[in-house]
Amino acid sequence: MQDKVPGTVMRVTWLEGGELQMREAATPRVDAGQAVVRVRLAGICGTDLELARGYAAFAGIPGHEFVGEVVAAPDDDATPWTPGRRVVGEINVRCDACRECRAGRDTHCLRRKVIGIRGRDGAFADYVRVPVANLHAIPDDVPDEAAVFAEPLAAALAIRDRVRLDGSERILLVGAGRLGQLVARVLRAHGCTKLEAIARHPRQRALLAAADVPAVAEDDVEHAAYDVTIDTSGSESGLALARWALRPRGTLVVKSTHHGARDFDFAQLVVDEITVVGSRCGPFAPALAHLANGTIDPRPLIDAILPLTDARAAFAAAARPGALKILLRPGAP
Amino acid sequence: MQDKVPGTVMRVTWLEGGELQMREAATPRVDAGQAVVRVRLAGICGTDLELARGYAAFAGIPGHEFVGEVVAAPDDDATPWTPGRRVVGEINVRCDACRECRAGRDTHCLRRKVIGIRGRDGAFADYVRVPVANLHAIPDDVPDEAAVFAEPLAAALAIRDRVRLDGSERILLVGAGRLGQLVARVLRAHGCTKLEAIARHPRQRALLAAADVPAVAEDDVEHAAYDVTIDTSGSESGLALARWALRPRGTLVVKSTHHGARDFDFAQLVVDEITVVGSRCGPFAPALAHLANGTIDPRPLIDAILPLTDARAAFAAAARPGALKILLRPGAP
Repeated sequence: MQDKVPGTVMRVTWLEGGELQMREAATPRVDAGQAVVRVRLAGICGTDLELARGYAAFAGIPGHEFVGEVVAAPDDDATPWTPGRRVVGEINVRCDACRECRAGRDTHCLRRKVIGIRGRDGAFADYVRVPVANLHAIPDDVPDEAAVFAEPLAAALAIRDRVRLDGSERILLVGAGRLGQLVARVLRAHGCTKLEAIARHPRQRALLAAADVPAVAEDDVEHAAYDVTIDTSGSESGLALARWALRPRGTLVVKSTHHGARDFDFAQLVVDEITVVGSRCGPFAPALAHLANGTIDPRPLIDAILPLTDARAAFAAAARPGALKILLRPGAP
Repeated sequence: MQDKVPGTVMRVTWLEGGELQMREAATPRVDAGQAVVRVRLAGICGTDLELARGYAAFAGIPGHEFVGEVVAAPDDDATPWTPGRRVVGEINVRCDACRECRAGRDTHCLRRKVIGIRGRDGAFADYVRVPVANLHAIPDDVPDEAAVFAEPLAAALAIRDRVRLDGSERILLVGAGRLGQLVARVLRAHGCTKLEAIARHPRQRALLAAADVPAVAEDDVEHAAYDVTIDTSGSESGLALARWALRPRGTLVVKSTHHGARDFDFAQLVVDEITVVGSRCGPFAPALAHLANGTIDPRPLIDAILPLTDARAAFAAAARPGALKILLRPGAP
């Protein structure tokens, strides 16, 4: 057992019945395969806002985008996680035994818990418990303010694994918020030059321009003209626009937390022979590589860094139309 | 101009306002780029039944699966179509000028007409007019009763072009009717051995068994266990079952005429990272090759061959639950 084990009580945000509040909770303990990580920064994303609106009936500590430092980890791990080591963590906690884990699709583990989302406490707290197998060390030259984007950047990178892109495709990105901005940067970094984005807010358009991605007005979107469209809006109208803009045999990527069922025209899906691809989590290693070599710098997306104790205000700020990334910083231990 | 030009009047079926009737109509004339084909056999498919129920507000002569013989074709064509030559015809009539045609997706021509389906008369008639560019000659050893399946077999073959299959996939086929039986045979011919099919009717199950495809009872379908599921049912319940059986990151192929909008859970599409692929028309050349070399023999699917004048009875027979292929044979000219 390593030293610097935290005290017995910590400050956490607690979400239950759509109500967010600060409270005290027992500090996580180290046990088999699990590290305790002191949270340095944590980001609020669209899924957190959905959880706060009641999605998935989550009750517990939310927060799944985080950077922290190891305070304690099991001795017996082959790669020791020295206290103070800065880390990010993958959020799907797998069983390693079910059919999906055995097939190598461990983010789809049939018994999975998801840190801060499903059955497992998250990082809007002083400390978070993370399976050692989920940890990734952060290169020294990646500051916390960039590293905290590892999880959403990995999610943005997942598009590459789900859709073959050679850079020649005309792509429409619907939604230029938190996730959309990262998707725009990923596509630019991978040579997609024929990329346009729908951005409703001036700051979103400025951030797109800084990433060399032209914004297009909704009224100027060409019907049935894009090879690939990507909805990061999570809204029914955004999904409909992404569908409307797609050419026959094109690919519509759904890259956001939608709130359940949508009407979808399957007659036209068949007539136009389109492909619809759902995409959720992605690979951390290339995300960290992008952050380390500077090919993607997400820090301009930060709107504000608030103390953890202001979590309610932070959630309210993140829910404002046009808001980008709000980070929470827990107090010193 | 070639000889054997038909008389001025022919017998046709006429569909309008969901009503099917026999009537006389002017025999088509040869003009630029168009051949006149005497219909030898024509098949009724699910789309015809949908049209008869009012889908797409079609008014005209239906029928898009046919085998016939050329009676007249323009002189000036580079490959002369000798009178008597047996042919099948692709159904999408393209403009060769629009963005989709120029991109090589001519079945998605923005100004397309579709023989017997959209803006162009079909083959439930003594004669049908077909663009010379759409004709395919039939090898001598392929009988009419097999050749008439060229169009739906091509549609079944389209799955190969839309989804990469290496034969190792566990596949569930939902629906073992007209199109489902052809899809089953295509997948077997392409080495997909881990294929199961849902068949509601004893004759459908017998036909699957003859093609070496095991039938599975709906209650025995394993949840989230199939790599690929294919809905050929066209029903809401069939689509739901195909979705339910699909594993995370699996591919759901929609291979049927659905009647408009369906409720679809986009939250779960994202969580499970599935892919949904619409598929419509396919390539005639490999379909004819399968028929010529006998790797696929669709003739056991024929329920009955009725005279064209019995079209209403034929449509009623084709609409019976469990019905397979009903063919129409126009009278001698």
